[in-house]
This record gives sequence, structure tokens and C-alpha cells, in this order.
Amino acid sequence: MSTASTARAAFRDGVVASTAGWAPGFVQANLVSVPTEDAYDMLLFAQRNPKPCPVLDVTDPGSPATVLAPDADLRTDLPRYRVWRHGQLDEEPDRVTHVWRDDLITFLIGCSFTFEAALAEAGVPLRHVDAGRNVPMYVTNRDCRPAGRFSGPLVVSMRPVPAGQVATAVRVSAQVPQVHGAPVHIGAPEELGIADLARPDFGEPVDPLPGDVPVFWACGVTPQAVLLESKIPFAITHAPGYMFITDVRDIAYRTAG
Amino acid sequence: MSTASTARAAFRDGVVASTAGWAPGFVQANLVSVPTEDAYDMLLFAQRNPKPCPVLDVTDPGSPATVLAPDADLRTDLPRYRVWRHGQLDEEPDRVTHVWRDDLITFLIGCSFTFEAALAEAGVPLRHVDAGRNVPMYVTNRDCRPAGRFSGPLVVSMRPVPAGQVATAVRVSAQVPQVHGAPVHIGAPEELGIADLARPDFGEPVDPLPGDVPVFWACGVTPQAVLLESKIPFAITHAPGYMFITDVRDIAYRTAG
Repeated sequence: MSTASTARAAFRDGVVASTAGWAPGFVQANLVSVPTEDAYDMLLFAQRNPKPCPVLDVTDPGSPATVLAPDADLRTDLPRYRVWRHGQLDEEPDRVTHVWRDDLITFLIGCSFTFEAALAEAGVPLRHVDAGRNVPMYVTNRDCRPAGRFSGPLVVSMRPVPAGQVATAVRVSAQVPQVHGAPVHIGAPEELGIADLARPDFGEPVDPLPGDVPVFWACGVTPQAVLLESKIPFAITHAPGYMFITDVRDIAYRTAG
Repeated sequence: MSTASTARAAFRDGVVASTAGWAPGFVQANLVSVPTEDAYDMLLFAQRNPKPCPVLDVTDPGSPATVLAPDADLRTDLPRYRVWRHGQLDEEPDRVTHVWRDDLITFLIGCSFTFEAALAEAGVPLRHVDAGRNVPMYVTNRDCRPAGRFSGPLVVSMRPVPAGQVATAVRVSAQVPQVHGAPVHIGAPEELGIADLARPDFGEPVDPLPGDVPVFWACGVTPQAVLLESKIPFAITHAPGYMFITDVRDIAYRTAG
């Protein structure tokens, strides 16, 4: 547990950990950096797929600064990054100063970790947090709406929710449309093409308790699946579950309701 | 009164009228078409200023088609357009086929007319509709957050609301964040730099009744003020109040609340 700035300082100093449960109450964000020539397609992809890709900020070219945390350096303040070359995962460093470029535009995209505080406040248990694990994420059989060179499947995160609290989980997350909003699917994982919940594509599996129903939210890892499919020459992202922690309070993204 | 498609057909056939009150229950949209080279800055401007510029769709280059109304032609189906050259209003035609270009990307941006149906349902009177007038719009002293070559002031629309119903108007419009959402300002027009409500910059003045309070919403005409300031070589917009009527129902943009 920490505030946003001390969490970022810890990651900058070399701590490597999933940010789930860190700096409660502060908005966490997915990071995608692409060269200027790919930025329009990425921004359009986000506009066309707002549930998995709710854009919170877009930087100026080459800038490691964001309005979401004025003191942060986007090249060093995440616990783990991924560097992509031609659709291949090339390295997973804990900073990206060595591969940074003047033409990189960085997208900070809402993360479902953000609404977890709201779920917890409403009494909805978070099984993965209780187990000290990263949230499980799955590539689905649903296609995103393409934009220019970007196309690919929807990725979802899954949280087991007690059947009696599923409606509460929907209501609470619907109030944060800028951080994925309401679930895209409840129960019936096979309908999303997920054969085995115990084998997520990203993150770690989480054990449901008896009476839990799997609830699926659109996930900010979606752009990574899309980058992989598009095979653009160069991109940087966060590592799934290792997010950017902003100075913005969760409450700022809740709708009046 | 009409459905969306018959309204569009009427405009295509030469009817010229403000779309306020037309096709009730259907989402209306602002239109901005810019050359491909300016599209990234326009999309980023919209992302950075979501209250005045909530993007509902972005077309492919040169395409007059939108997913918001598959049968529509964006070059002919609005009642009135504005053609801009180097920041100057060049003409106000009722179709733009003669100036259309293969490199134009069109942005359809949410319009406050959309939440008027919700306001009316909630019993909030719409003085300008009752008077058969276009809604009054004002250029404010507030700057939008710039993006690339685009910068300029926030434009607001104003509706006089009975003091006892202002809270209802806030609550109802907050439930449609994709069409401007909650008001940006209530009362005190001088704080926005508006000297005289009877002299709007766009649209027509509307007479308040005793006990009415002026309520200001971010307005989709904002991009026009921005195009004017940026002096880009070429752009097309709708004429203020003469909107694109989509096939999408208002209810689709209401949050769960």
C-alpha cells in the first residue's frame, strides 16, 4: 500500500511487482507507445473501441511527460515494460530509456484496476487481490473494430463474483465508463472462445469460490494483442498487470449516475 | 416531426431548416471534415476536449458513409453546411458534393440536441424549441486544451431552466456523457465572458421566463471556432444548428447511472 508518487518512485528504483492493489484510490493506466506515423491509426482504433481502449491521455511526440502525473517519467516509472519489434516481443525491461525515441507518442489507457476500489467499497470481493495474484486475462473470439493497420481480438479480464453480487458489480463498474465500464460478458466463457479459465493468456489464474460467476470486462491489454497482429516495426507497452499509476483519483472518473 | 431517414431525405431534397426538434429520440451529430494531414490533430483535439468534442464516429478517407446511419450520404444529408478556407467562412451550401475531396476524413461529434429528448421526458422545458428557434450558442473566455495546430475557445449552448429544475437538468444530462454530459456552468454568464445573453455568437437568442437560470453546456460548435483560429487550408462543417441526424437512438448513449 502506498500513494501514487511513492509507488512510482519504488518502481523507478527497481521494484518489480504487479500494481494490483497498489496506491488504492488512484487511477492506473495501460501504456502504449508507437512512432508518430502509427499514432493516428492507434488513436482511431481507441476511438472505435472505447470499452477496451478508453484513452486517458496522449503525449506529445517524444515526451515522457503526462498531465495525469506531472512529476512522472513514463520511461522509468512503470515496474515492467514490453518492447515489440515487428509484432514480436523483443524484451521485458524495467525501464525503456535505452530504446526511447523522439518520435514516440504514448497513449495512456484506462485500466480495470481503477474500478476495483469501487467494487471493494461496494462489498464485492476481489479474488485475485485476496490471493495476491495478477488478474487473469483472456484473448477472446470477438474482433475489435479495425482502424487503418490496427485490427485484432478483444482481450478481457475476469473476476469471479458471487452470484448475489453480480448485479452490484455491473452497476458499480458501469459508473466508470472511462475505465472500461460495465462488463462485456457474464458467465458462459465458452461463448467468448475461452476453453479453460485456469489457463489465462496473460496474468495468473484465480480460483473461484463455490457460487462465483465469471465476470468479464474489456481489458486494456487489447492494444497489445492488436500490436502483435499488426506487426508494426516498433512499439513499447507496459507488461500486463504492471501498470502506470497516475496522480488522478478514481473518483474523478465516476459518472454522476 | 419525422424519423431519422425521412428527415435526411427531406434535407437531401432541398429542405433547409434547423434540426432542433426533428426526429425526436434519434442522436444528432456535428460534422467536421478535414484533410487527412490534419486528421490526427483533430482526433487528438477531440480526445483532449471530450466535453465539447465527444466523437461518435470517424470515417475512412474520402468516404461519405458512417456506421451511425448506413444509408446516409454525409455530402448531401445535412440541411446546411459551411465550407472553410484558411479560417474564413467561404460558403454555406446545402450540399458539398462540389467541394468533396478523396482525402477528407469526417468526424461526427455528439450534439446537445440529443439530450434534449431526455430533458423533455424529465419535464424540463426547452424554451428554444417552444419558440421554434435554434439554440443560442456563445464563444466563451475558456480555452480548450490545444492539440497540434488546433487551439481555441470553448463554445457553449445555453438553455434557460426553471430554478427548481436545474438539478434535474444536471442529473439527466450527466447520464449522456457522450453527448456533452453535465453542464459546464450554471448561472453567472459574465464568468464565461458572455456580456449579453440576447446576443449569441451562433444560433438565435431565446427569452427566459421569470425564475429561469441560464444553464450552459459544452457545444459541438467548438471545433468550428477552433478551425477558424487554426486557419487550416480547407475544412467542411455543418452550419450551427443544422445537424446530421443519425439512425442511433438517444437511449444508446445513456449510461446505466
